[in-house]
Amino acid sequence: MRIYLAGPEVFLPDPAALGAAKKAICIRHGLTGIFPIDPPTPMPSGPPDWRRIHAACEMHMRNCDALVANLTPFRGAGADPGTAFELGYMRALGRPVFGYTHAPGDYRLRVEAGRDGAAWRDAEGLEVEDFGLAENLMLEGAIAASGGVLLRAAAPLAWTDLSLFETCVAQAARGLTAL
Amino acid sequence: MRIYLAGPEVFLPDPAALGAAKKAICIRHGLTGIFPIDPPTPMPSGPPDWRRIHAACEMHMRNCDALVANLTPFRGAGADPGTAFELGYMRALGRPVFGYTHAPGDYRLRVEAGRDGAAWRDAEGLEVEDFGLAENLMLEGAIAASGGVLLRAAAPLAWTDLSLFETCVAQAARGLTAL
Repeated sequence: MRIYLAGPEVFLPDPAALGAAKKAICIRHGLTGIFPIDPPTPMPSGPPDWRRIHAACEMHMRNCDALVANLTPFRGAGADPGTAFELGYMRALGRPVFGYTHAPGDYRLRVEAGRDGAAWRDAEGLEVEDFGLAENLMLEGAIAASGGVLLRAAAPLAWTDLSLFETCVAQAARGLTAL
Repeated sequence: MRIYLAGPEVFLPDPAALGAAKKAICIRHGLTGIFPIDPPTPMPSGPPDWRRIHAACEMHMRNCDALVANLTPFRGAGADPGTAFELGYMRALGRPVFGYTHAPGDYRLRVEAGRDGAAWRDAEGLEVEDFGLAENLMLEGAIAASGGVLLRAAAPLAWTDLSLFETCVAQAARGLTAL
């Protein structure tokens, strides 16, 4: 089984090292991890600009059986939009999607909000979801509907601590065998 | 042609009014707009909790021919993760995806970053994409690859000004006719 390893770790100074560590964990659980920046085969010709990176990631996803995403909040209250895009992409293909986050609290508590009748609202007056979820309901809904899990645990080194990732991979391995 | 109207406007105090305004604009351009909170037909039974909202949105997307997304930064540097999820979902289904943002500047300029060799890095040391794009390359890559456009223009009322939305819908209408 091939697992697409989504998350903002592609932006780390040495993303290949983090990707290798994630792949080693996948192997321990009988899975093959595919990291977004892995060179695709065949490699498209031309300059490695954003169009080629995007095309390679879509190709990788189509060749994977499931996705494990790091949904830790990224530069704001919610998950990285690129990672959320990939979660939606794999969900639409009918592949099981799993996630983990190093922000263990509910989404509602991460946004400064005040009560307005039945709803919580941020400073702009926009509603803050209050479903006891860690993330936007579309992400959590897709994970739940696909048979996946979203795991939460704090980690002091949010982008390099892989213990929660390993727990998630282990659950994915069991879940994918059962599917 | 049915257009899924993605964006964080579902969190406005009166989302139905905004949805109605967007749909009226779609009609002017020969398109039918579907707003995420529209009651689906058939309506699933049970309580209107997050699982049902998620299931209804996925059903709406599968019944739409294209997507127009408000990618204005939401509670952070990037687009709403729920909207990014939906962009990925429709892209995986092979549907054309269009976007607009009321933050007209490049993504790189929205994140406090310093130069580190060839890359820009944020306070956590994570790379800040510097491709001259308004958003994460996966979102822009999907829009470009699908034949869509991502339009940028400032608007003082980012969540209720619909002039850029209308320009985007007009371009989508022309593009969908040509496809």
